[in-house]
Amino acid sequence: MLIVKKFGGTSVGNKERIFNVARRCIEDYKKGNDVVVVLSAMGKSTDDLIGMARDINPSPSKREMDMLITTGEQISVALMAMAMGALGVPAVSLNAFQVSMHTTHRYGNAQLKRIDTDRIYNELEQRKIVLVTGFQGIDKYDNVTTLGRGGSDTTAVALAAALRADACEIYTDVDGVFTADPRYVKTAKKLNEITYDEMLELATLGAGVLHNRSVEMAKKYGVQLVVRSSLNDHEGTVVKEEVNMEKMLVSGVAADKNATRIAVMGLKDEPGIAFHLFNVLAKHNINVDIILQSVGRDGTKDISFTVSEDVADEAVVAIQKSFPKSEYKKIDEEKDVAKISIVGAGMMTHPGVAASMFEALYDAGVNIKMISTSEIRVTVLVDEKYTEKALNAVHERFSLDE
Amino acid sequence: MLIVKKFGGTSVGNKERIFNVARRCIEDYKKGNDVVVVLSAMGKSTDDLIGMARDINPSPSKREMDMLITTGEQISVALMAMAMGALGVPAVSLNAFQVSMHTTHRYGNAQLKRIDTDRIYNELEQRKIVLVTGFQGIDKYDNVTTLGRGGSDTTAVALAAALRADACEIYTDVDGVFTADPRYVKTAKKLNEITYDEMLELATLGAGVLHNRSVEMAKKYGVQLVVRSSLNDHEGTVVKEEVNMEKMLVSGVAADKNATRIAVMGLKDEPGIAFHLFNVLAKHNINVDIILQSVGRDGTKDISFTVSEDVADEAVVAIQKSFPKSEYKKIDEEKDVAKISIVGAGMMTHPGVAASMFEALYDAGVNIKMISTSEIRVTVLVDEKYTEKALNAVHERFSLDE
Repeated sequence: MLIVKKFGGTSVGNKERIFNVARRCIEDYKKGNDVVVVLSAMGKSTDDLIGMARDINPSPSKREMDMLITTGEQISVALMAMAMGALGVPAVSLNAFQVSMHTTHRYGNAQLKRIDTDRIYNELEQRKIVLVTGFQGIDKYDNVTTLGRGGSDTTAVALAAALRADACEIYTDVDGVFTADPRYVKTAKKLNEITYDEMLELATLGAGVLHNRSVEMAKKYGVQLVVRSSLNDHEGTVVKEEVNMEKMLVSGVAADKNATRIAVMGLKDEPGIAFHLFNVLAKHNINVDIILQSVGRDGTKDISFTVSEDVADEAVVAIQKSFPKSEYKKIDEEKDVAKISIVGAGMMTHPGVAASMFEALYDAGVNIKMISTSEIRVTVLVDEKYTEKALNAVHERFSLDE
Repeated sequence: MLIVKKFGGTSVGNKERIFNVARRCIEDYKKGNDVVVVLSAMGKSTDDLIGMARDINPSPSKREMDMLITTGEQISVALMAMAMGALGVPAVSLNAFQVSMHTTHRYGNAQLKRIDTDRIYNELEQRKIVLVTGFQGIDKYDNVTTLGRGGSDTTAVALAAALRADACEIYTDVDGVFTADPRYVKTAKKLNEITYDEMLELATLGAGVLHNRSVEMAKKYGVQLVVRSSLNDHEGTVVKEEVNMEKMLVSGVAADKNATRIAVMGLKDEPGIAFHLFNVLAKHNINVDIILQSVGRDGTKDISFTVSEDVADEAVVAIQKSFPKSEYKKIDEEKDVAKISIVGAGMMTHPGVAASMFEALYDAGVNIKMISTSEIRVTVLVDEKYTEKALNAVHERFSLDE
């Protein structure tokens, strides 16, 4: 079997943890498997490098930022190779050049285009464990790029696809994917299986276990993922196309506190005004989530939408710059809001799921500010202070603890 | 003009120093010059990485060690590009892959084979300052290599040769090459010029300003070097083929405390015994310096030689393993010794220089343990405790303070 394993920064944060990871990989290797390991930078080392950079230049060139922070993963893979060497197992570390990991040239948020597999196969044939730097790539001019948030997961999935791996295991600090965040919902249960689509909705909605780009890629190339803990031997959650057992109505409930609601009030009710508004945001690369348009007074309309907190102020400024003061009455920005979502592949064939969720929130005294739905998801916006209450109410209503 | 400038780890040790280097480079850039800058890793960062490695594996794979420590220079060049960006000047950092710097595959001590110049010329044409990682290269299989001690100097000289640079400036924390180490000889004077050959003898003998590999390369390719301080604007020392002014008898005096004298006593007086002895050391990659053979008693002979302190114990063990106890009487190891050398291109045509040196040491009450000479150098071995006294006595005898 060819197994791709990915460990995050926390899992390689110190010497003890590095050896812990080394031993887990060697276990599979000694069973005769080919083992490829993708690693992130150690602990908070990427943040430290970013801190050094910003101290020197508050808005550094993105190219140089990528050049800087990619050293983090290189340190991880080199130290891991040494740890495996200390345990008597031959290992070789490879960075994005050496693999090579070809990407687009968008620094800080590049897309993987193609992975060369020759070098990796060659090292595996020599019975070495191959350690690959996650998160990074090279563009066609040999510039160093990074894949953006959750990039190491994407590296692992892409490698698994390119190498036609038999398994792709994403190790994290939790046991797998849960019906809800165990920090907020005491009765949350680990799921044994989940579909790509459900996972995609959960990843986008802040479940935080897997990055959505990696799940999209896994779905596209049919790479079956296992999300499991690096700290114990529990089985983890399998992410795949079809869940074999009877589809659950609702697989899980997720919260995302990193949301801001922006309302542009009293816009002129003219054709194209919504297009103009969201076009401005798109030009600033700001992702908009829930959108709600309502008719205001005196022939005006209000448009509300949510964006992630870190770009909210930028969004407001962008709108103020693009719309003359005469075209709207005011802009409201509300940061103390959270998105609560339920996700389930079974929802498609079962009407009334959304209504059940709303009822549960009503019973718990949680007011709903906005609503958005997809085929397998229902999301509502609530006051941030109700996050925990809302999660628990919904979790209980759909009997996710059973 | 195309100028190659090299700054060591101390010169880029913190934010303030990084900006200091950035400003010096920008000065040349703003005069219309093309500027290529070679940087070492920041301060003690390489030592820190080596420490981490040894903590994980006391004898790590050399390949992985190179993979690990080359991240240091990459951090330096990226941060420097950001600093120059903050000062409004476009700069681009390039690592060994991006240049590319082709080397042999001997990890930890690779030799430069060839440097591609396309990328650098291309960036210079776009009026960017080009920042290149010192000390590192890639072998033909894209493995990362390092050039060994003083490797960044070698990178700078090789780049200057490959780019046909008009100047190659090596910045350090002293004002240039001195007639003696100013820490020990208060009257030591900075030399304005020195020949490659003199510099080579001084580098080998522990003057510590330039690594001998870089000087050899400069001599081979006719790259005129300037050694100068990164802390002030003093002129520095020019290293070149011929010194224009009348050749000084003695250019400088150097000390090297990193020496150990090993004496193998009572060896059988048979043909080939010296060959056998030094062949053993060569196989262990141990460089031998001064060699002295003398006839012992009862038809035996004694062979003494010096090696650098860090390999002395290894040398003794190697000899003990290769020679049966019956072939020699005993091995002496003396670590508290220092080499004192005078160097001067003028020596070739002036007999009696060595005698003057010996007389100066005799007058100062310093006993000579061994002697070795080349065309432009005389070296003696003395007790380490006499280092300062010997340096000053010789310095004064040849009027180097005048």
